[in-house]
This record gives sequence, C-alpha cells and structure tokens, in this order.
Amino acid sequence: MAQRKTLRSDLAWATPDRIFVKGYDLCEDLLGSLSLGDMAFLEMMDRRPTAEESNVFNAMALTLVEHGLTPSAIATRMTLAGAPEAMQAAVAAGLCGLGSVFVGSMEAAARVLQQALPSSQASCDIDMQAREIVTTHIAEKKTISGIGHHFHKPADPRAQKLFDIARANGLSGRYVALMQSIAREAEKQLGKSLPVNATGAIAALASELGMPWNIVRGVGVISRAIGLVGHIREELKNPLAREIKTRAEEEASSHRR
Amino acid sequence: MAQRKTLRSDLAWATPDRIFVKGYDLCEDLLGSLSLGDMAFLEMMDRRPTAEESNVFNAMALTLVEHGLTPSAIATRMTLAGAPEAMQAAVAAGLCGLGSVFVGSMEAAARVLQQALPSSQASCDIDMQAREIVTTHIAEKKTISGIGHHFHKPADPRAQKLFDIARANGLSGRYVALMQSIAREAEKQLGKSLPVNATGAIAALASELGMPWNIVRGVGVISRAIGLVGHIREELKNPLAREIKTRAEEEASSHRR
Amino acid sequence: MAQRKTLRSDLAWATPDRIFVKGYDLCEDLLGSLSLGDMAFLEMMDRRPTAEESNVFNAMALTLVEHGLTPSAIATRMTLAGAPEAMQAAVAAGLCGLGSVFVGSMEAAARVLQQALPSSQASCDIDMQAREIVTTHIAEKKTISGIGHHFHKPADPRAQKLFDIARANGLSGRYVALMQSIAREAEKQLGKSLPVNATGAIAALASELGMPWNIVRGVGVISRAIGLVGHIREELKNPLAREIKTRAEEEASSHRR
Amino acid sequence: MAQRKTLRSDLAWATPDRIFVKGYDLCEDLLGSLSLGDMAFLEMMDRRPTAEESNVFNAMALTLVEHGLTPSAIATRMTLAGAPEAMQAAVAAGLCGLGSVFVGSMEAAARVLQQALPSSQASCDIDMQAREIVTTHIAEKKTISGIGHHFHKPADPRAQKLFDIARANGLSGRYVALMQSIAREAEKQLGKSLPVNATGAIAALASELGMPWNIVRGVGVISRAIGLVGHIREELKNPLAREIKTRAEEEASSHRR
Repeated sequence: MAQRKTLRSDLAWATPDRIFVKGYDLCEDLLGSLSLGDMAFLEMMDRRPTAEESNVFNAMALTLVEHGLTPSAIATRMTLAGAPEAMQAAVAAGLCGLGSVFVGSMEAAARVLQQALPSSQASCDIDMQAREIVTTHIAEKKTISGIGHHFHKPADPRAQKLFDIARANGLSGRYVALMQSIAREAEKQLGKSLPVNATGAIAALASELGMPWNIVRGVGVISRAIGLVGHIREELKNPLAREIKTRAEEEASSHRR
Repeated sequence: MAQRKTLRSDLAWATPDRIFVKGYDLCEDLLGSLSLGDMAFLEMMDRRPTAEESNVFNAMALTLVEHGLTPSAIATRMTLAGAPEAMQAAVAAGLCGLGSVFVGSMEAAARVLQQALPSSQASCDIDMQAREIVTTHIAEKKTISGIGHHFHKPADPRAQKLFDIARANGLSGRYVALMQSIAREAEKQLGKSLPVNATGAIAALASELGMPWNIVRGVGVISRAIGLVGHIREELKNPLAREIKTRAEEEASSHRR
Repeated sequence: MAQRKTLRSDLAWATPDRIFVKGYDLCEDLLGSLSLGDMAFLEMMDRRPTAEESNVFNAMALTLVEHGLTPSAIATRMTLAGAPEAMQAAVAAGLCGLGSVFVGSMEAAARVLQQALPSSQASCDIDMQAREIVTTHIAEKKTISGIGHHFHKPADPRAQKLFDIARANGLSGRYVALMQSIAREAEKQLGKSLPVNATGAIAALASELGMPWNIVRGVGVISRAIGLVGHIREELKNPLAREIKTRAEEEASSHRR
Repeated sequence: MAQRKTLRSDLAWATPDRIFVKGYDLCEDLLGSLSLGDMAFLEMMDRRPTAEESNVFNAMALTLVEHGLTPSAIATRMTLAGAPEAMQAAVAAGLCGLGSVFVGSMEAAARVLQQALPSSQASCDIDMQAREIVTTHIAEKKTISGIGHHFHKPADPRAQKLFDIARANGLSGRYVALMQSIAREAEKQLGKSLPVNATGAIAALASELGMPWNIVRGVGVISRAIGLVGHIREELKNPLAREIKTRAEEEASSHRR
C-alpha cells in the first residue's frame, strides 16, 4: 500500500461541551454576535470581515437572492411537486442549474479580472489592460462576461448601487476600475451600449475583497439557496408547478392528438 | 381544455430601471441596508425582522452552518472531485442528504410544538401538553425529536446559548417552555439524561418567530449551503476526497484480491 | 478510539488486467452477452435473471421511461438551460422529484403487498388479506397506492399488459392476485372504478421477482434517468425551457407591472 | 408581448386508453418486445437499434455501470445515510459528480473524433488526422482524452473487448480506426504506453452508432444511475457511510483535540 496522505480539516471540531468553528468557540464567540452573512464571509475567506467588508459582502450576496420565476426556481417548484417530503432535494434541483449561463458568468468575470491584475502586482495601466482583454475576447470570438443586459437598459441599476456601496466603504479599487474600463472599451470597440451588469459588479467587488475567482460562484450558490427556500414557501401556499406543467404538456403534445 | 388557474407570484418583478423583491425596491430599500440573514428572514417570513427577531434568527441559522466532515460535506467533496467545473452541483449533492436523519429532525420537532400549541390558542397547561406528547411518543414507539445527543453531554451547549439569546431578545415564550418541558418529562419517563439539543432549540425558536413548521427545514438548508461552500473552498486548497475514497475502496475490496 | 467496523463491498474489484463486477469477469462473462436491463437486474437482485424474469423486469422498467413533459422532465430542461455544460446535473435535478407523489407510490404499494404476504408464509386467503388492507386504509384515511388513475379510464392499459407479460412468463403469483384483489375490494368499499394502475402492477411484479420493497423505487429511478436523457436530447435540438419560463414569469408578475 | 414560440415535444402523448412513446404504442409495440437497453437507444437516437447496434450499445453502456466505491458511489451512500426516505436524491447526488474528470472524458473524446471526421466527409487520411490531433493537443498542453490508464496496464481490457464486439457486429469503422491511431501516435510522440482506454473505446463506438458527441455523456449517466441503485441496495444491507465518515472526521480533526 502506498504512503497515505494524512486527512486534515480545519473547519470544525468539538469536545463534549464546546464546539469550534474556524477556530472560534461557536457559543462564546459567534452565536449572538456574528450575522449569517458574516458567517458566510468567514466560511469563504477564512477570517471575519471588517465592518466595511461586511457591508460590501452582504450587498453582493443580497443582489442574487431573488429574481422571481427563473429556470432554477421553476426546477425547484417542479421537484417539490413530486417530492414534497424532501424540500432539501427541491433546493438541490434548483441549484444544479447555476452553471455557465447564469451564475457562472460572475466566476468568468472574476477570473479575467484576477488574472489581469494578480494581487502581487504593484501597479499597471488599467485602461491598457482593459483594451487588451477586450481586443483578445473579440479576436477569439468569446463573450466578455460581466457587461451588457438584455432587459436592464441603459444601465443595470444593481451594478451602480454596488459600486456606490464599495466606494462608500473604501473598497473600490483597481478591480472596480478595470471592470468599468472593460465596459467602456467594449462599448467603443463594439459600438453599442454595454454597461457593467450585476454579475460584473459582483465579480469586481469579490476581487476587491480578495476572494479567489474559483470560489466566487459560491456567493451565487449561497444566495440562490436562500431565494429557492423563498420559492418553496410560496409554492406551498400557492402552488404553480402543476399548472405550468399541464399547460406545457398539453401544448407540446397537441399536434399528436 | 379545462379552465386554467392564473399564475401569480409575488417574489420579484422588474422594470428596465428598477428591481422589486418582496415589494421592496432592491437598490433603494435593501442593498446596503439589509443583511443576508435578514434577507433570508424576509424570504421565509414575508416581512423584515425586528432587531430582536434578527438576533434570534441569525443565531439559529448560524448554529447549523458548519459541523465539519459530515456525510453531506463528504458528498459535496466527492462530487467536486468528479466535476470541479460545476461547484453548484457539488453543493446540491451535499444538500440532498439533509433528510430525516439530520436536519429533518428540527422540522419534526417544530411540527410537534406547533400542533400542540396552535397560534390561535390563548393559553394552556404547558406541562400537561408535554406529558401527553411524551406519553404518546413512547406508546407509539416513536423517537421524540429535539432532545438528547450522543456526543454533547450532559447538555448541548448550543441549545442553552440559543435559549439565552431568545430570552435576551424577549422571544422566549411558550414554545421554548414546551420544548424544555418535553425534555424534562422524557427524562422522567425514560429515566435518562435527555436535554434539549440544537435542533430542538431551533425548532422552538423558529416557532416563537411564527415560522410554519413545514418550512423550518429551510433554515437548515440555507445554513448548510453556506457551510458546504466552505468545504468546497477547503477541498480546493487541500483535497481530501480522493484519499478518503482510495482508502475505502482498497479496504472494501481487499477480501477479493 | 472505538473498535472499527471493517469496510466491505462486493460490487466490483479489479486487477491490472481484469475487472470483476458482482463476481463476474466483466469482459469475459458480461460484455457482449448481458443486456443493460439484465445488468440492472443483477445490480438490484444480486443474480442474473432467468429468461422469464428478464422479460418481466425489462417490461416493468420500460413502462416508466418516458411520460412526456412531467414535472421532473421540466426540472431537467430548466437545469440544462442554466448549466448546459453539466448534463449530469440536469438529470440529477429531474431525479430529485421522484418522491412520494409519483414514483414513490410503487414503493408504497410494494410495501403493502410484501408486508401482507411475507415470502416465508406458505399460504393464506388472498381476498381476506385484501379486505383487511382496504378496510384499514379507509379507516386510517390513507390513500391506497397502486390503484386508480385520473386520466387512463376505465383501466390503465399498462397494468393489463404487464399482468399479461407476467402470466406468459409464469410469474403471475400471489402478489399479482393480491394487488388485483385490493383493487376489486376498494371498488366495492368505495363504490367507484379503481383498477390497478401502472405503479400497482409494477409493485406486484417486483414482488413476484423477489425484490425487497425498499429498493423498488430504484426501478423507477433507473427508468426515468433514461427518459431524462431523452429529454436532454430533445431540449438540445428544440429548446423549450426558456419559452416555458418566460411565459410563466410574465404572467406571474403581470399584476405588479 | 413578443411573438411566442410554440411548444412542441415528440417524446410521448396519451389518450385515455393508449400511450405513445416516440411514435410507438407503448403497450402494443414496446412492452414485452423491447429491452431496457434498446429503449435507452430509442430515447437517445430517435429510432430502434438494429440487432448489431443493440449489441454494441448494450456493451458500451454496461461497461460503465459498476466501478465499486467511486467518489460518486460514496456521495450516494453518504446521502442515503442522511435521507433514507429519499433514495432518488441519493442517486441524484451521485450523478452530480459525473463531470469532466470521470464520465465527461468520453464526451471530450467523442467531440475530437466527430469534429475530425464529420459524417458528411467521404474519405480522408486517418493517420494524418491522428497526427494533427496529437500534435495540436501537445502544443496546446491539453490532455488527450480516451487514452492511457493509471491502473489497467499495459492495456485496458474493456477497450479491447469493446473493439472486438464492434468488429463482430460490423460497426468498427473510421472512428474506431481514428481512436486507435490517436493512441499509437500519442505513444510515439510522448514516448510512453498510452493504449485506448474504456472511455476512448466508448467514444469511438458511440460515434460509429451516429450518436452526436453532445449527448454521449448521457450513456454514462444512464449506466451509473443503474450502478448507484446497486450501491443503495448494498448500503441498505451493509451500511458503510457512517464508518467512512467517522474515520475521516476523527482523523481530520485530530490535530485540534
């Protein structure tokens, strides 16, 4: 048998009378003093947020909680209709769709920002970076994540608000500047209105907070888990799933009957 | 075709320049002023919490975020090992296990409490109710949810802390009293130590907040979604899944080779 | 540290040049000679089926593969719309809804049959058993699983066909008789047409095959996994998810705009 | 409101006394005559297989059913431990991990094969195509999917068997030739043993059957759904999940206690 890797996790451990989470005594240090949003920050960043970071992180996460009858909300409601005894599986079904099309775009945007501006790098010409990013994306026929919106025009009100909150908390730095510069540059090169959207703003703020791009999608997953529970609550009071299904089924098979 | 039910949802809607969530203007009323925990309360309860309700709800939800390498955390890590490009599915896999054994017990406890003490009912003898509940459960050979713990002895420190927080916020009422009375009565009838555990305390506090028992499990789902993202973060930095799997696989098939 | 349980699994193991599955050499004994349906039987029953058992099992499983735009098919399509790069998660989302309302009913029916007629029991009065089952369910206000259908009237054509196949293969025994007797008795006691439906027939046939009731739902899970891949194929060619979602979303929020 | 797309699906429809699946009468044409594997072919390919196609498809699908305690099998078992009442969610949790690392590799290999040899193209130099594919992958530092195996050396016995079955059924054509040529070329350019593995062989056979690369992963999803039900069956009889979890948890937190 090969040499074994030792298993080690630092998230939680317990004694009969105490529970430790991320090095804090759960009952003494966290319960009653830490908010759920700040706990999410602690889980994702390995430290408690400052007051300013908390303001920015909570706003980012809140943005994504509730978008009405999205595909993932409908998946959750359909699942609840079949398995009302397993609410957790209904939330799971909804989360499964948070892929490249919706929530994944903020991961893509954060990756671009963080690869252009590694934290080790002291300074650089932001606008030149933006130009290069936009030029490369266009040349490779790739979508530029984080800009443009099919419905919120001329600007995404959430992006502007999130940037305001970041600035008010002293957390509007070079990632915000780069995201905004990318939008301006894309508008210039492509000749149409492409303001920063909500996922672009969240990608920029997550980067300002020092969150690695490969866990940024987690903010969206947490937020939507909250929103999907809201949909379950509404579906339990006023079920829509069967009606949506019956209409779709009847129309889709009407050419055969 | 039969008469159709009209679809109606009141969670969110938007105009090109504004987004409304639960009747609030997302950018004006919520972003920057509401915390993520209070947003979860709004989604689950259809109203913003008071300061006292916020304290209690955030503490309840925080309790369940992180328990270390639970079965659901291991399911999440195993899933990430196979599909690192789909973090959302890894969280979904972990949530699927929040059923009757772990998180579901708080739903069961809340149901007992709320069915014993409907909100319409002005007063009653709490201890008599507790006695009847315990007697019935024992006669029907059913587990009494919300009491006892295999590891945290003689008491679950989280339950005591949660009850303290409820009292300090003026939210320790008859559901807390009933939960505590059930524990005392069960100890008496069964002749062993069975203090209220964390899920029992959460069930009692959720009931004090007016949360219907059939969505109480949602608090656990939200909390564990946060914790599972924490496990993803740690697994990305220090992967354990393959080592756990290799050891299990080798031992489990060693009798055949 | 407490004494450890030894891990042991007998499903598969391998050497560098051979792979064993359920005790068979995968390449020598199974590939090219066993069909996928018979492999499913082997996984669920721990032995290869006889020709007759294979006929019955394949027919049972086939019945559940495709039902058109069911709630779980819609959940799968919605998930694919958000995460087209993770088809496996789209199937997973659809499976999550195979709970008590749809596929779970065959588990419930199989449980009733097998608890009434344990395999150890040599003989009994089938009709008396049926009468007792129906009487008890009605007294306890419980649904009798496996009978009646809201659309397939006066009889479910699948049930009749499955019973024919079982008889033609010498596998129509006392579980089939009991299921049919339950339907007759329920019709008598409740005074309406309640023929055995597809899930009732599958529950009876699974019991004839010796399949324990607590894994009967697995037949449905396997079948629907196949069907959900069919929906993914169609959704990739002719997407419906966004249209269904857009209509639902617009109607559901129209009272607010 | 914009012009609406009409919903249309051709998978299934029903009248009160008949059910149609993919244009066939379920009871008359399919039940009792079509096997489950051939039904999967019908769902994925929109037609019934020939006898030769059936042989190849069933063998392909069978190969992936059971691999022992894989990460996805462990995820399924962990989920069952928490939610034994929701077996469907346990299978779903296991499927969530069938991503890029394991099952996804056959999608990647099929894509390479089908993009190199479009069905419209009458003839070409297979070896030249293989050389170009290998050269390009090496230059771009990309993994070549479908070749090499960490454990099955010097060759993967499943690949050889699958190729034998394809040839015996007259379905070993230019995709098989290209896959084998890629392996030879990679061995030459990289100077090490890199025979075609099981996923490479499946990708080649799926391409011979005319299956579009973007649904090839579906074969793996179906197969593993079957295998995961097998793991549920074994876990119900001989539970391993808690033991695996307890050991991992104790070791992982031992440095803190």
